[in-house]
Amino acid sequence: MQLGKQTSAFSRPVYIYSAGCTAGHREGQGPLAGIYDKIYEESALGLESWEKAEAIMQKDAFSYALRKSGLSESDLRYILAGDLLSQCIGSAFGMRDTLLPFIGLYGACSTMAEGLALGAMLVDGGFADNLGVVTSSHFCGSERQFRFPLEYAGQRTPTAQWTVTGAGAAILSKNGPGPQITHVTMGKIVDMGIKDVSYLGAAMAPAAYDTMKSHLADTGACPQDYNVIVTGDLGSVGAGILRDLFLNDGIDLGERYNDCGMMIFDPHDRELAAGGSGCGCSAVVFCSHILNQMRLNNWQKVLFCGTGALFSPVSALQGESIPSVCHAVSLCNN
Amino acid sequence: MQLGKQTSAFSRPVYIYSAGCTAGHREGQGPLAGIYDKIYEESALGLESWEKAEAIMQKDAFSYALRKSGLSESDLRYILAGDLLSQCIGSAFGMRDTLLPFIGLYGACSTMAEGLALGAMLVDGGFADNLGVVTSSHFCGSERQFRFPLEYAGQRTPTAQWTVTGAGAAILSKNGPGPQITHVTMGKIVDMGIKDVSYLGAAMAPAAYDTMKSHLADTGACPQDYNVIVTGDLGSVGAGILRDLFLNDGIDLGERYNDCGMMIFDPHDRELAAGGSGCGCSAVVFCSHILNQMRLNNWQKVLFCGTGALFSPVSALQGESIPSVCHAVSLCNN
Repeated sequence: MQLGKQTSAFSRPVYIYSAGCTAGHREGQGPLAGIYDKIYEESALGLESWEKAEAIMQKDAFSYALRKSGLSESDLRYILAGDLLSQCIGSAFGMRDTLLPFIGLYGACSTMAEGLALGAMLVDGGFADNLGVVTSSHFCGSERQFRFPLEYAGQRTPTAQWTVTGAGAAILSKNGPGPQITHVTMGKIVDMGIKDVSYLGAAMAPAAYDTMKSHLADTGACPQDYNVIVTGDLGSVGAGILRDLFLNDGIDLGERYNDCGMMIFDPHDRELAAGGSGCGCSAVVFCSHILNQMRLNNWQKVLFCGTGALFSPVSALQGESIPSVCHAVSLCNN
Repeated sequence: MQLGKQTSAFSRPVYIYSAGCTAGHREGQGPLAGIYDKIYEESALGLESWEKAEAIMQKDAFSYALRKSGLSESDLRYILAGDLLSQCIGSAFGMRDTLLPFIGLYGACSTMAEGLALGAMLVDGGFADNLGVVTSSHFCGSERQFRFPLEYAGQRTPTAQWTVTGAGAAILSKNGPGPQITHVTMGKIVDMGIKDVSYLGAAMAPAAYDTMKSHLADTGACPQDYNVIVTGDLGSVGAGILRDLFLNDGIDLGERYNDCGMMIFDPHDRELAAGGSGCGCSAVVFCSHILNQMRLNNWQKVLFCGTGALFSPVSALQGESIPSVCHAVSLCNN
């Protein structure tokens, strides 16, 4: 059901049946690592390239999610997948061996939320009883592709975020256990003119603000209605900007607001100070900690806002600013 | 409604309300050029880069589609968009100025069909009354990104296709005029081990075969039920392989089968002999000739099969084969 300008509410429950996540060594030293399904000790997984490793991480995350659901692959109707690698090869190669219809997405780091939102619409619309959503990112591959080769040993700016090495997969279903997805809000492209690719949190924060405002307006909710509101990968800088944008409206997001990029790494690690980023960042945190807290009933209602910076190395070198997007998914316990 | 393993049939009509397309100079000399909305004489449109030009081509195509529909932008609920440029910047920058929720896709050259299929599901599911689907490609940008810089003046192999410079946009709606989308079949990733990036038709033909077979099985149709069956960009080589694959099953696709890559360029131009490719190829042909022929009632029932090669320059250089996908959309007059 359409609610306001951007939000859809679901007429029947759409459940997160199960989820799986895999992560790199550094992520495996972070505060949430105890609940990851798999931690790889070596960044290339012993393979010939980081790109091949990322595809395997995605495949593994999907296998864990599927195994936990008790469903077989043929019970799924679609795979929705995307990643940050050019032409989304993490997903194409990671999901190549499934015999499932493949819906390729590109939402940059918002891909997990985009996939959950689209997937929920497909389940609610009756087009799938069960489907998979999967995404990933890899620090080494991302650095080489978006910034500098690692061998260049470039200095990081204080606002630079650290691309998470990891993958997350969720199985959506018209059957439980849950939590349920109750509403999704698809975001508009917002571009406030930021051109610094080491300052993505600032580029994405206005998109998060725009989508969250729309979500609250469309649903008539207020931040207090949620136990937790999480953005995908604004990092500490972007999260601060988002807080300020809401404060300008007289809304204090307070303790209930957090960002996956700040949750995934040790906040005392100065190299990672601005926090994590990448499709894998929100995917790993969502598929582990967020679902875990909801299943433990510590959190009953969560707003998950995936954020993405829709730039490329080419657009940055051509002097373009960084268009950003945010998609929001509202979850509640059954 | 789910039909068989991969197909959805729609409970209420989903209409193609309007469409627009824009094309480059060379495309403007092809046999379909008389019905294009705009032909640019210069490949960079007077801008600083081909990438910026591609974004404008996409924006223009969307403007034509919107204008012809008589709808205003705010009547649309979503834009579904993607392209071949890394991180899909043609779409991010082309659609940046719309104030519409943005659903980013990556289906390589199958993007028009992927967008039409997903869009039809969103309309049928009640999540949108009207939405836009848009995609594009650019010969110069694609050559630089996927193969060699133009300045290198590389020789083309006989199987090499020519990336179409062009963009197409369609407005889907729960209201007429039409034609209607009646069924969509989402394709699986098929990879038969082809590694030659100048032989994409051969990589994609088995994916087209797989999806078309699934579509026919799921719907109980046979090729004779369609006036026309078109693939997106197999080109002459891939189209021949597809014909052979069906002939092995005792099915002669015959005259009713054609490929957008062979329709868009003059078949006597030897440089373009293997045909067109790129997201823009099937998008331009669909949004001009195919819809035109249906509206003239020359064709009553069409199966539009978008084909995509899910490789990247990195995956090719790493020795990987070319995973491919095909999504099919069945259209009929009202």
